[in-house]
Amino acid sequence: MTELRFGVIGAGYMGKAYAIALSEVATVYELGIRIGKEMIASASAAGAAEAAARLGFARSTGDWRALVADPAVDVVAIAAPTPFHRDMALAALAAGKHMICEKPLAATAPEAAGMARAAAGAAAGAGVRTMVGFNYIQTPATQLAREMIAGDELGQIIRFSGTHNEDFLMDPEAPHGWRLEAAQVGRAGAMGDVASHLVNLARFLCGPIETVVADTQVVHPARPGPGGPRPVENDDQGNILCRFASGVMGNLQGSRIQAGRKMGLAYEITGTKGAVFFDQERPGELHYYDARDRAGRRGFRRLLTEPGHGEYGRFCTGAGHGYGYNDMIVSEMAALVRAIDTGGPLWPDFAAGYEAACVIDAMLKSVDERRWVAVAEISEGLG
Amino acid sequence: MTELRFGVIGAGYMGKAYAIALSEVATVYELGIRIGKEMIASASAAGAAEAAARLGFARSTGDWRALVADPAVDVVAIAAPTPFHRDMALAALAAGKHMICEKPLAATAPEAAGMARAAAGAAAGAGVRTMVGFNYIQTPATQLAREMIAGDELGQIIRFSGTHNEDFLMDPEAPHGWRLEAAQVGRAGAMGDVASHLVNLARFLCGPIETVVADTQVVHPARPGPGGPRPVENDDQGNILCRFASGVMGNLQGSRIQAGRKMGLAYEITGTKGAVFFDQERPGELHYYDARDRAGRRGFRRLLTEPGHGEYGRFCTGAGHGYGYNDMIVSEMAALVRAIDTGGPLWPDFAAGYEAACVIDAMLKSVDERRWVAVAEISEGLG
Amino acid sequence: MTELRFGVIGAGYMGKAYAIALSEVATVYELGIRIGKEMIASASAAGAAEAAARLGFARSTGDWRALVADPAVDVVAIAAPTPFHRDMALAALAAGKHMICEKPLAATAPEAAGMARAAAGAAAGAGVRTMVGFNYIQTPATQLAREMIAGDELGQIIRFSGTHNEDFLMDPEAPHGWRLEAAQVGRAGAMGDVASHLVNLARFLCGPIETVVADTQVVHPARPGPGGPRPVENDDQGNILCRFASGVMGNLQGSRIQAGRKMGLAYEITGTKGAVFFDQERPGELHYYDARDRAGRRGFRRLLTEPGHGEYGRFCTGAGHGYGYNDMIVSEMAALVRAIDTGGPLWPDFAAGYEAACVIDAMLKSVDERRWVAVAEISEGLG
Amino acid sequence: MTELRFGVIGAGYMGKAYAIALSEVATVYELGIRIGKEMIASASAAGAAEAAARLGFARSTGDWRALVADPAVDVVAIAAPTPFHRDMALAALAAGKHMICEKPLAATAPEAAGMARAAAGAAAGAGVRTMVGFNYIQTPATQLAREMIAGDELGQIIRFSGTHNEDFLMDPEAPHGWRLEAAQVGRAGAMGDVASHLVNLARFLCGPIETVVADTQVVHPARPGPGGPRPVENDDQGNILCRFASGVMGNLQGSRIQAGRKMGLAYEITGTKGAVFFDQERPGELHYYDARDRAGRRGFRRLLTEPGHGEYGRFCTGAGHGYGYNDMIVSEMAALVRAIDTGGPLWPDFAAGYEAACVIDAMLKSVDERRWVAVAEISEGLG
Repeated sequence: MTELRFGVIGAGYMGKAYAIALSEVATVYELGIRIGKEMIASASAAGAAEAAARLGFARSTGDWRALVADPAVDVVAIAAPTPFHRDMALAALAAGKHMICEKPLAATAPEAAGMARAAAGAAAGAGVRTMVGFNYIQTPATQLAREMIAGDELGQIIRFSGTHNEDFLMDPEAPHGWRLEAAQVGRAGAMGDVASHLVNLARFLCGPIETVVADTQVVHPARPGPGGPRPVENDDQGNILCRFASGVMGNLQGSRIQAGRKMGLAYEITGTKGAVFFDQERPGELHYYDARDRAGRRGFRRLLTEPGHGEYGRFCTGAGHGYGYNDMIVSEMAALVRAIDTGGPLWPDFAAGYEAACVIDAMLKSVDERRWVAVAEISEGLG
Repeated sequence: MTELRFGVIGAGYMGKAYAIALSEVATVYELGIRIGKEMIASASAAGAAEAAARLGFARSTGDWRALVADPAVDVVAIAAPTPFHRDMALAALAAGKHMICEKPLAATAPEAAGMARAAAGAAAGAGVRTMVGFNYIQTPATQLAREMIAGDELGQIIRFSGTHNEDFLMDPEAPHGWRLEAAQVGRAGAMGDVASHLVNLARFLCGPIETVVADTQVVHPARPGPGGPRPVENDDQGNILCRFASGVMGNLQGSRIQAGRKMGLAYEITGTKGAVFFDQERPGELHYYDARDRAGRRGFRRLLTEPGHGEYGRFCTGAGHGYGYNDMIVSEMAALVRAIDTGGPLWPDFAAGYEAACVIDAMLKSVDERRWVAVAEISEGLG
Repeated sequence: MTELRFGVIGAGYMGKAYAIALSEVATVYELGIRIGKEMIASASAAGAAEAAARLGFARSTGDWRALVADPAVDVVAIAAPTPFHRDMALAALAAGKHMICEKPLAATAPEAAGMARAAAGAAAGAGVRTMVGFNYIQTPATQLAREMIAGDELGQIIRFSGTHNEDFLMDPEAPHGWRLEAAQVGRAGAMGDVASHLVNLARFLCGPIETVVADTQVVHPARPGPGGPRPVENDDQGNILCRFASGVMGNLQGSRIQAGRKMGLAYEITGTKGAVFFDQERPGELHYYDARDRAGRRGFRRLLTEPGHGEYGRFCTGAGHGYGYNDMIVSEMAALVRAIDTGGPLWPDFAAGYEAACVIDAMLKSVDERRWVAVAEISEGLG
Repeated sequence: MTELRFGVIGAGYMGKAYAIALSEVATVYELGIRIGKEMIASASAAGAAEAAARLGFARSTGDWRALVADPAVDVVAIAAPTPFHRDMALAALAAGKHMICEKPLAATAPEAAGMARAAAGAAAGAGVRTMVGFNYIQTPATQLAREMIAGDELGQIIRFSGTHNEDFLMDPEAPHGWRLEAAQVGRAGAMGDVASHLVNLARFLCGPIETVVADTQVVHPARPGPGGPRPVENDDQGNILCRFASGVMGNLQGSRIQAGRKMGLAYEITGTKGAVFFDQERPGELHYYDARDRAGRRGFRRLLTEPGHGEYGRFCTGAGHGYGYNDMIVSEMAALVRAIDTGGPLWPDFAAGYEAACVIDAMLKSVDERRWVAVAEISEGLG
């Protein structure tokens, strides 16, 4: 393969992040493949044209269906709000396009199931590859945690405790919007939006989640809308207890109103021989406790990420030099490009996105029925 | 009052801690009352005599009942293992002695109820004062957190997340002992032993807990005993979701096998205007986020404890000079002495110890029945 | 301007870093200018061709003089070792090329003076712009520190304490190389290589340095070379006391053998109203103490960088999402491109690089003569 | 020995600290010796009587000479301001009393020399033991650092960097007082007061200091006095570069106006195999880097102090449970009592106090003469 041409749908925050990543991924990863920024789609033709000029796309369109159908687009990146994911993804799959779609994959598990089934079909047919934009698993510190678990450095894993707490909606006067409407994004609020990252991360590190019991809360029941206060229809914060298929005990917290937490995706993983903890607000370090250290000299070590830890070495050859937000997106793009190029594995794909959605829906059911719920009660299977 | 004479039962770790505190409390608090180290009891007369010489008690006994009955003992400090608490406390209450008893108050809520009822009777009769040794609430940083909540500095509290994780039993070859036997300490293991501190702390800061759902686990089902492996009869780790009477969402974790955590009593309390977090491994600091700080200059502040924060000023006049383990015990003793002297309030008393026990028993019931349990299902009332 | 074409000399670590930055800078900064990766030069034609393919340059050459002379190259980026800087820069200036040159500008202050004089001539003539690659001043946290100082948030500055300690040569068996030869890089070792970043940073934040007294040390006097041990000819570590022209007291430390420090560029700046501290190993946070906070609630705040702090918002719209090594290089490139495009100010230029070199040479003189040395004793003026 | 009776001179901050320590030291250290709080002296008889009642001394006096001469006082603790140290110490030595004297030992090196000479005489004669109250070296984390150095865990030590920065005088309107008068405390201000702790600590960990070059500054030249502004006669902040006799490079900073630093006694010690760093604001932890850890798993470990680290186990049997300000004073007292009881070694004694004073006076000379000064230029020898 010598070139792969991307079409990006959405010219906001994530649209720009994808544009940045597409600009540099071939250089960072020394891919030897040209990555084309072929087209960008936005809500209006004028806006899209402006974005194309600003972000360096060759062409633009005010109609995402045109982008999806364009023969010069090999890969579609969906950077539009969640309510649009399904239609965009199904159209792109029907057109045989490879795809990365922002998280969460869909508003509900059944919706995600449909997308995952379509993806499986397109994979079987045209060899289409799909990916969900759970970017945080790309952080080298988290990649390192996974390697340590796989390499038995922590012994048998017995506990996962994680949070994804932010405070972007802590002001009760922050305006209403689509993220707060059940019809748009489903009944999971902070838990579906931010904490879906945590669910995916927990599965990345500790495997499938089998059962959950949860509690959620809408703290600010109404927020200012255009014509006065409008009801908030999904949770501001939530807690989940879970068990993984492996028997590991889990504890997951999410929030969009957690005062002071800006990128509070953090976890501690405990094993029988050691432990690690991590905080995305300090993405360059993984703290590691090795119980086999000699007596009196045991303590959590601050490992600064360095070449050899996940993909860090692609970005920088010095230890502890810093790893940024866009670097994760670059690593995502590299994973997608390689998978398309080589046919090798790619994770998280749409099936994984669906499995994360099942955990969220199991959480909702647990809250509704005030009981432990097996994720299998939600999952319909994709076969 | 000019003198108060203490009898301490137990000459181990906590017996020594009490002895230290009794030695210095009058000086630290400038009480103007002489605190007598009248008597110490241990399992044998010889051991007690040796402890008295070492720790500076006037007299000693191999029979705790003699101590409890001694007319020269005004206050009894029970520093014996949990299985002995009930008999000792009931005897001391019957003898009209004031008392501090190590935590947890008893192995089960019904046992604690009996003790609390006896304490209420002795209080009504002889004006007896009781206290449970949940020492960590004395930490100035935690006292400060409480003042900030009371002073509305954080706004309406919406979340409490806490842990009390340690790793003193993480080695599967650590020997069996009474802490692992249901007949001795009840069916709550790490959750009854270490996490009872967290339950008490959560109640200190956020008020009564109303409902719980929990998950616990015995990770190492057997440990070496004198005659071979013996079964472990209570949890190594556990998680609780709860709601406080105030509506605050709660999340409590406990462990005795959490690799790398030595005194991992930590919490984050989030309100609508700000938040605090704390870690007992760094007892001299409370981290405080004030959402009213000006834009671009908001962040968690590391407040080093100083005079004006709880009882810190009694110990030291310089900010950030350090606050130690024994300092907490001194503050406990001062609270007890003052309450005896003045008749003022004292917390946590045996009633509070019982209420903490009810939360733990509600947790056990939740695990047994895999459902949310109201603490009121356990609590029998002390009336 | 619609396009700016770059030629990069050097295909190692920094050559790649420049290639990455050139790939993405137009997208990140939404420049509306095409940035061309026109040519890369390396030691051999074959190596350069391979690098061009890998890193995405249109053309390549084994002769840097060809690159410098090429009419299609508008800007030269010198990513070659220090010993080559002078010849390359003088040739490029003679050819009227804009330029970014890696730090330190040259091996000695006189050498740097020649380059700065040539730069001044080229600026006066062809309007040539020059920059020295002291990238760390681009970190948003450090940009924020500068804004806070300028905005009088810290009051009158009274102290600057900084380190740039790393440990990449701590192993005494690490092989000898050009960085250890006086003929190649001058008599300043760690102090010229890593600590020149610190000198530039100190000047960025607190202005010119007037006097210095210093101490340096070669800890490992010989290292393995091809034919046996070879002498190390410059310092492994050093300390500088200084005074800034403003009267601020300064303290600067550098090392290449500081066990455990990987990117230990850290500083604390104290003023009469507050202070900040920073550590490049945690590049996303600036710690800020405001003495005007109310009593009992004062403490260093951890400010997570966010839009509004330096150039952070160009990279990411969420606070605390992480800022990486390459992001700094991108900001450097953006500054250079904008200065070329608009004729606006650009810092640090070659004159600033020369001034940093004077501080280093004053340090050497101080060590030689064991006395305080005025930087003016070194500086010859560029006029 | 069965009893040791103490007389404390001074009823302020340090007088109380000594009283606390005397109350508990026998219990904490299980000494088997009764420690008598025999007498306290203060400026007036009434004040002393009140202090005796409050702090639990048997007797009191308004005349320190009476205390020093009292036959029932075995040991004198001088907790009076620096200007009084010499007369008090000389009188006590003449009376054959053992002694602990607050730091700094005296206002100048010559004054300290006289005291050290008298102490040597009294030691040779009556076997009198002396100690200077440089309490911070008692911190278990610092004791551990010393053990690690002695045990070659860090390899050859190559660097000591330390600070003792506080901000108790950062407000320019803080009133004038004796600490700011050269006639009272000498010409070293922050450097003599707080940074003398750092000098002693550096010597404790790395041995004698041989040469220094320094810079100091009075930032606020006048402060409000009773009758208007009065001049400040000694430094607010200072920096020292030094070399130890061992060749170790040193860097020492002191301040009383360092915004945000409350107990900023911190150090980093680097060796050829590893390093440690410490901050007294987090007294319970020593950070340790071991370069022999396996590749990719190296990082500073946070060692929480525990039994086996210095004297920690005397205070608490659990790791990471906290170590407080008064605990250090208890350890000092225990060291003094043991030395008196057994005749064993005791450090820092008055000779060590004198040696620290010589470093400070060498610093002053370096500032006066703007040159490197050998400590031997100051030291007169005590022989």
